[in-house]
Amino acid sequence: MGYVLAVSRTVAESQAERSEIIFPADSNALGNLFGGRLMQFIDLVGAVSAVRHSRAIVITAATDHIDFVAPVHVGDLLILKSSVNRAFRTSMEVGVKVMVEDALGQTLRHVASAYVTYVAVDREGHCIPVPCVTPETEHQMRRYEDAARRREMRSGETQRKKELRAKLGPGWHV
Amino acid sequence: MGYVLAVSRTVAESQAERSEIIFPADSNALGNLFGGRLMQFIDLVGAVSAVRHSRAIVITAATDHIDFVAPVHVGDLLILKSSVNRAFRTSMEVGVKVMVEDALGQTLRHVASAYVTYVAVDREGHCIPVPCVTPETEHQMRRYEDAARRREMRSGETQRKKELRAKLGPGWHV
Amino acid sequence: MGYVLAVSRTVAESQAERSEIIFPADSNALGNLFGGRLMQFIDLVGAVSAVRHSRAIVITAATDHIDFVAPVHVGDLLILKSSVNRAFRTSMEVGVKVMVEDALGQTLRHVASAYVTYVAVDREGHCIPVPCVTPETEHQMRRYEDAARRREMRSGETQRKKELRAKLGPGWHV
Amino acid sequence: MGYVLAVSRTVAESQAERSEIIFPADSNALGNLFGGRLMQFIDLVGAVSAVRHSRAIVITAATDHIDFVAPVHVGDLLILKSSVNRAFRTSMEVGVKVMVEDALGQTLRHVASAYVTYVAVDREGHCIPVPCVTPETEHQMRRYEDAARRREMRSGETQRKKELRAKLGPGWHV
Amino acid sequence: MGYVLAVSRTVAESQAERSEIIFPADSNALGNLFGGRLMQFIDLVGAVSAVRHSRAIVITAATDHIDFVAPVHVGDLLILKSSVNRAFRTSMEVGVKVMVEDALGQTLRHVASAYVTYVAVDREGHCIPVPCVTPETEHQMRRYEDAARRREMRSGETQRKKELRAKLGPGWHV
Amino acid sequence: MGYVLAVSRTVAESQAERSEIIFPADSNALGNLFGGRLMQFIDLVGAVSAVRHSRAIVITAATDHIDFVAPVHVGDLLILKSSVNRAFRTSMEVGVKVMVEDALGQTLRHVASAYVTYVAVDREGHCIPVPCVTPETEHQMRRYEDAARRREMRSGETQRKKELRAKLGPGWHV
Repeated sequence: MGYVLAVSRTVAESQAERSEIIFPADSNALGNLFGGRLMQFIDLVGAVSAVRHSRAIVITAATDHIDFVAPVHVGDLLILKSSVNRAFRTSMEVGVKVMVEDALGQTLRHVASAYVTYVAVDREGHCIPVPCVTPETEHQMRRYEDAARRREMRSGETQRKKELRAKLGPGWHV
Repeated sequence: MGYVLAVSRTVAESQAERSEIIFPADSNALGNLFGGRLMQFIDLVGAVSAVRHSRAIVITAATDHIDFVAPVHVGDLLILKSSVNRAFRTSMEVGVKVMVEDALGQTLRHVASAYVTYVAVDREGHCIPVPCVTPETEHQMRRYEDAARRREMRSGETQRKKELRAKLGPGWHV
Repeated sequence: MGYVLAVSRTVAESQAERSEIIFPADSNALGNLFGGRLMQFIDLVGAVSAVRHSRAIVITAATDHIDFVAPVHVGDLLILKSSVNRAFRTSMEVGVKVMVEDALGQTLRHVASAYVTYVAVDREGHCIPVPCVTPETEHQMRRYEDAARRREMRSGETQRKKELRAKLGPGWHV
Repeated sequence: MGYVLAVSRTVAESQAERSEIIFPADSNALGNLFGGRLMQFIDLVGAVSAVRHSRAIVITAATDHIDFVAPVHVGDLLILKSSVNRAFRTSMEVGVKVMVEDALGQTLRHVASAYVTYVAVDREGHCIPVPCVTPETEHQMRRYEDAARRREMRSGETQRKKELRAKLGPGWHV
Repeated sequence: MGYVLAVSRTVAESQAERSEIIFPADSNALGNLFGGRLMQFIDLVGAVSAVRHSRAIVITAATDHIDFVAPVHVGDLLILKSSVNRAFRTSMEVGVKVMVEDALGQTLRHVASAYVTYVAVDREGHCIPVPCVTPETEHQMRRYEDAARRREMRSGETQRKKELRAKLGPGWHV
Repeated sequence: MGYVLAVSRTVAESQAERSEIIFPADSNALGNLFGGRLMQFIDLVGAVSAVRHSRAIVITAATDHIDFVAPVHVGDLLILKSSVNRAFRTSMEVGVKVMVEDALGQTLRHVASAYVTYVAVDREGHCIPVPCVTPETEHQMRRYEDAARRREMRSGETQRKKELRAKLGPGWHV
């Protein structure tokens, strides 16, 4: 007798959250959270969702366009939430949303949204299959549909870049 | 008599470089550079190009789709190069290229390419105008043209997201 | 017209969560999460609960006895959850629970539980009053009662230490 | 012929010290050392005492109640001193005292005192026996006696928690 | 009435110590402490001695030749000790010695010795005078004498470099 | 058939660069880059040059006298450039130059120059031979000549220290 690997998981099962009070160590000369640190937070929380869904080691494969629509200041309460929107054979699209809770906490300010793609791998780093996602709410369903559309756009983009690199050869000229 | 702010700069003037030997402190459980740390490196070198072009404080406004096409291991020599592709009124598109130099150094392995948008600001955080970019080579010219096209796509995307957020209101439901 | 400061908040309003995949940078020579890093994670998530409850800057005033009942390894998925158990005039007792999600995710392993006391302060660092806590469930009610008992034990302990220090004078002899 | 493992060590043999000038990277939005960072300093210096006593790898098993009785500011000179108060079969109680040296250095300000318990382990993480402690001064003798009393309180506490967890089962309800 | 600034301090008054267990976060791809991290430890402990002697903010002005005579491994117990060898008008030469305590602790292995020069400054960063050093032992006396000799060599060296830079003008050609 | 290890490389082949915008996390209480962090930057960029020249793992063996001739502030653009001046059997002298680009970028301010010696090692940490350096310009030729002179001074210095240590025995008395 053994155990059966899940063939499907709900979105709720992969939800993850990370709350950060922004410290001077995270800030630039203006006292704002700097962009690269926020990208790091996004990747860290997204990876937790991917691990929860796949129950495997995951590596970051790609990140879609991210707008940083509002600055974040030292002392702000930053909240990141993530979940797997959809899984493909060995990869997962994770949606990450970043908000700042106002000091009086009555309002949430939107800071950034990101779609990060993770791949599940074994100890040797080889890709391994992941369970499907079962969307349960209308919102989850919409994100599930959108994920497929985004994946198509990404592979078009990736294909275009590959061809460009092939044409140019390796090196710094691109 | 005073000094005259440059109205235009060449791409060469904003070139920046960062070399990193990857350490265990940058790695995940597999001994690979983790995605969020690489994104941080990309933002850091890109910001140097934006500062060199604008001679101002800069903040990260957006990052385009990034593919991480190859893993980077502890001990690898990672090289990041960046320059401003094109400047708009108060913003700049910076191209960042990431390569790994092979241990025997005969070859360069492509790891990722990124387009990051920075905005120049004054001490109070208000946007300020930046010089134009004068492309000088064929490659620079091509990137200059592409930057305008990407900008259009970005503002379409941003517009689409704004409408979505307006429809849904603030909060975690997206 | 102004706004009215909450006189009471529910426990749910102060709940916070932090998920971490443990990296080599967090580990000791054995590849385990080291104790001081875990204490830092506990303080960070606890502070988020205290900020959510008080809507103020908070500083850590005390931490109760913590047992680290199980080691945490590089690659493990660590989850920390916290909420305010009870508020006193200017201070709050926050309960933090730390678990590891098993790689196959079917089980949660208990790592540590902690009670951390935070004080709300203004920009000059002076203590300011905080809202009361309204427990809503049986568990919350029990923790609310226990918090008062722990507070009494703490002040006995603190009193005993103060007397000892007064007797010995400042310096390293204790 | 081989070498004989010490069966007993003095307190002086395990004394350790760590001096830190507090930097912005260690501070919160108020420019104070944040609590979690101080806990990390405490664990780091305490571990040095435990290594000096046991000549083994050590892991943090528990920390007793800690009061942070005074804030520490950026630029302050923080001094931590530690030594093993008493050893049990495989564990050691380490006392850590934290002071701030005043800018004019005439006075020492008490910041925190902590008792941290470490366990000595081998390369596989199994507990191994440690030498006894031989107290030599009156103060050392008093701390030696107190350590046994604290150990008893701790195991009562630990027992009480174990029963509670057993009753409740694993999960987040405690 | 005011207070009188010390005109002289003993070497013992400026002694500082820092003990570190080396963690993977401090190591390179071979699992050794990397050189730049060790230099940072040296500067940090040396600055404590300079602060203790001058009771002022200090900045690092120069470091003499340092040999790293033995590698340091993850898990090693690194000990740094420092004290002010001699003070000049506004600067201090601090001697830092770095040792590794062997796992069985019977032996100390010499890792590096360094002489670092610090300058005392006020809040605006202007140099301020510091007390003299009163050597009390034969060793302290020898280091006191040597410090003057090293200072002379340093200013010869500095002079030579200044002339070279003057000849070459600013830029990257040196 | 195999591949032939380069017997000689040009200085240009080992050139490395690192640009850093200084962040609060790198600063001391005055908002200046602290010395130990700058030493770390110097070691990191120098190691890249040593890796590029030797195509091997490198460890830091020594650093010559460094003057920090000008403070660096939060927000400053710091540029480090390095290349191998000369190689000996298993070691390399790397020159590192550190400049700050003025906010208006018209001028470069000299911050520090350093000579760091690295040794090439194999996976077990044993020294391995490195290619020679072929200087190509007048400046490179001068640095090549100077490197030999500095090496002689260093070994005199090292010899003197060894004798001193031999005379004194191991321990803290030096």
